[in-house]
Amino acid sequence: MPLRPCNPSTPAFSPVALSVTARGQGHSHHAGARDPRQALPPKAQGRTRALPGLSPSPGTQAPAPDEEQAPIQKPRGIQTELAYLRQRTRIITHHFPSALGVDDFMQRMEIALYAFGFSGDNSIAMVNLCRDEVTLTLKQKIDQVFGSSFNTNGLGGVLTCGVSGVRAGLSHAPVSKGSGKERYVFFSFPHISIDSRGRQGTISRPGRPGQSCACGALDGALADIRRTGLAAACKVPGVHEPLDPEMTILKQRLARRLRYEGVGEEGVQALDLVAMTQVAERTITDDLEYLISQTVDPARADYAVVTGVQIHSWGTSFDDDAPNLEFVAPSTIDVVTNGYKTHVDLLALPALTPRQIALLAEGPESGGGGGGGAGPARPGRPPSVCNSAGHTTLREIDPPYMYASAAQREDRMARIAAYAQALGPGAGGEGDTCSWPGWQSRLRAHEPHRADDSSIHIDQGEGDLGFFFWGGGGGAGCGD
Amino acid sequence: MPLRPCNPSTPAFSPVALSVTARGQGHSHHAGARDPRQALPPKAQGRTRALPGLSPSPGTQAPAPDEEQAPIQKPRGIQTELAYLRQRTRIITHHFPSALGVDDFMQRMEIALYAFGFSGDNSIAMVNLCRDEVTLTLKQKIDQVFGSSFNTNGLGGVLTCGVSGVRAGLSHAPVSKGSGKERYVFFSFPHISIDSRGRQGTISRPGRPGQSCACGALDGALADIRRTGLAAACKVPGVHEPLDPEMTILKQRLARRLRYEGVGEEGVQALDLVAMTQVAERTITDDLEYLISQTVDPARADYAVVTGVQIHSWGTSFDDDAPNLEFVAPSTIDVVTNGYKTHVDLLALPALTPRQIALLAEGPESGGGGGGGAGPARPGRPPSVCNSAGHTTLREIDPPYMYASAAQREDRMARIAAYAQALGPGAGGEGDTCSWPGWQSRLRAHEPHRADDSSIHIDQGEGDLGFFFWGGGGGAGCGD
Repeated sequence: MPLRPCNPSTPAFSPVALSVTARGQGHSHHAGARDPRQALPPKAQGRTRALPGLSPSPGTQAPAPDEEQAPIQKPRGIQTELAYLRQRTRIITHHFPSALGVDDFMQRMEIALYAFGFSGDNSIAMVNLCRDEVTLTLKQKIDQVFGSSFNTNGLGGVLTCGVSGVRAGLSHAPVSKGSGKERYVFFSFPHISIDSRGRQGTISRPGRPGQSCACGALDGALADIRRTGLAAACKVPGVHEPLDPEMTILKQRLARRLRYEGVGEEGVQALDLVAMTQVAERTITDDLEYLISQTVDPARADYAVVTGVQIHSWGTSFDDDAPNLEFVAPSTIDVVTNGYKTHVDLLALPALTPRQIALLAEGPESGGGGGGGAGPARPGRPPSVCNSAGHTTLREIDPPYMYASAAQREDRMARIAAYAQALGPGAGGEGDTCSWPGWQSRLRAHEPHRADDSSIHIDQGEGDLGFFFWGGGGGAGCGD
Repeated sequence: MPLRPCNPSTPAFSPVALSVTARGQGHSHHAGARDPRQALPPKAQGRTRALPGLSPSPGTQAPAPDEEQAPIQKPRGIQTELAYLRQRTRIITHHFPSALGVDDFMQRMEIALYAFGFSGDNSIAMVNLCRDEVTLTLKQKIDQVFGSSFNTNGLGGVLTCGVSGVRAGLSHAPVSKGSGKERYVFFSFPHISIDSRGRQGTISRPGRPGQSCACGALDGALADIRRTGLAAACKVPGVHEPLDPEMTILKQRLARRLRYEGVGEEGVQALDLVAMTQVAERTITDDLEYLISQTVDPARADYAVVTGVQIHSWGTSFDDDAPNLEFVAPSTIDVVTNGYKTHVDLLALPALTPRQIALLAEGPESGGGGGGGAGPARPGRPPSVCNSAGHTTLREIDPPYMYASAAQREDRMARIAAYAQALGPGAGGEGDTCSWPGWQSRLRAHEPHRADDSSIHIDQGEGDLGFFFWGGGGGAGCGD
């Protein structure tokens, strides 16, 4: 299977290393920063940081507000942080010009949709992301605004839930007491990693050495389509590999889209992961809009469609000095109210300030594990990096649960180093935390929960049955 | 489509209404309960509660510890709460004898898996639930223990992610530094609602009048299989309706399982939703185990398989007086370490005490919206109901985000009543919070995000292509 670690086809983005001593860079814009140490990223205190490229970027970029106006003399440390965050943003906007920091995106989106009458009280969110666990950071932020959301996730973001899935979600929507109207907000974002050095597809997962890939499914689909050729990958709709339904359907949707867009066999060989992700976004957005056309009655319901690409821009190692940042590059933001469609421009709204972003992101719903825990969940800890970065505000993120918190991992590594010193050379390593047998034997059931059976496997066919299929361009249809 | 509100085929379970005055029932076992009001469910303060059936249950049930030993004289109020919670448990164990309160289940499961070496630090969770937003309560609890999990959700819990999905998740697992071993924990739970009066399938969603259904997909699949007959529903693997991949695959898996288990056409007509959910659990557990056999190398990885049924037992109305409870009925809990499989019995562990359950569930990771917010997120609020219920400990749940919090909804209704009184008769109702045009026009983009296109629709076939399918019992295979 092609879900291999990415070998990015593009070189790293302007990886000019800049060494700065992080301690004592002055005070930050962060809410409640009283201690100078709090101006620094938690990962960087008292250490020398190797910051990725502050060289001029090849991407087009609006001048940053503080460059444009520059009336206020700011301490040197803050200038450095602002420049660094702008550079991190440029790495992303080079590929995705509409990209905003995820918190900034979420706050503007909430304001914009509220102007059209959508709130968590009166709307259900239908959220379509990749199945990858790293997408949960965005999912949780959406849930915080719109409440627990109906999940339409698929590999690479492909929509396999179909009309039944969409209808099921819509049937759970709140109903407005006055108008009897329902409101739906559809979110759909395939994802990609572009790391702090600008490498496409590479991501470093907590506790796992080496580089992993996001999105592995899109990378795998691209590799497969390249290998088989585009024509062979354009399967007819309605068939799938029984052991691999979603990947089969994803490849068919992407291949047919590539052919529709006029990408030939040679063009496919030249595609990089960024381009493939953009193709996936267009494919999935169109598929979503088609499913909406089949399921939503605009006379009974207002709805919004918010699509784009979720972008992870983490350090080259999960817990290295580069803050782990997340972006969203919106493509379609459409609102349909009273049957009338409005295209929404999030850039018509200002970025919220670093103080506002930090307070909103670090509230009681943010979970205890991550950068969100700068509040009560991590007493005594410096807050996460949160500052302006040109046209957007960036905030360091951490996965929303205790495990996979970069800060907690760093603490543990420091403790381990101290233990090793205390134990002296040669000690450690013997024994296991779980001796066998111990409590395990007390937990053992004498019987399996039910007898092993040989139920018909997913891919087990039946020679005595005719063939049935749905849709497609002919043949004997069967179904209900 | 069959995703209609359930019309439960079984009558409500012993719905004997018992009226008790909730205020001043004495003190509870709850951690930190200093105020007598805190002994009461937040929804019930100072009101008369109609409690469902305390009549003897037809289900078999182990004697509750306090009945068996009964050495300590407890205040009458607590006896009533314990009796009520035991009765709520019996409503569930009548259908699912292994059911435990969800928090109790989670804590025992964490202890048991830790004895075999699994923790959030060294394992990735692969979580398979229905796409329904109400399943998020369990998903969030799993994430709190094992960190952000890879999501394999499908309608009704059907596994469409296939071998590519499972492999993708496994490739994100942490790697143990010493042994190089990976660890996976597979969770899989179809779900059902059995409300506080014992009615199968009915659930009341926040902000939505009337009864909704869980699981709508399984209820719809059952209705469809009844309608078409079992034989016609046993489609060959490898085909699906292009507009409805997952529902098609779910029905095929369930129908083939029913036939395999010897359920005839008449038997299908007699199935109720509980029985169908149990069939779905067996089907999906077997499919999961088959996918594991195709993807996991026990020489390289330890893994656990935890399956069963997620049960929502909410009030007949979302914010009525009956506490909203959640159960898990485990079926298979298997641990494979060093290639050796152990069947685990969670009843070999004691239930944690109400104090322990409440503190663990209401920590900083619990979110700000729900019953979990009894701590800092809802200062001044009485804590959720949390007490013994026979063989398990039950705790009132609330969806994990601010919207859909029963407590917050109740607050708002009280405010609205006060406003109506203050406004006097005839006032209110005129005007809208969102006047048009207003900010909306400032947010309008002049152009759509991209031109409307007519990309090939999901269900659009091609007459000029041959037919391809995978697997099945013959014919021209095509694939990679």
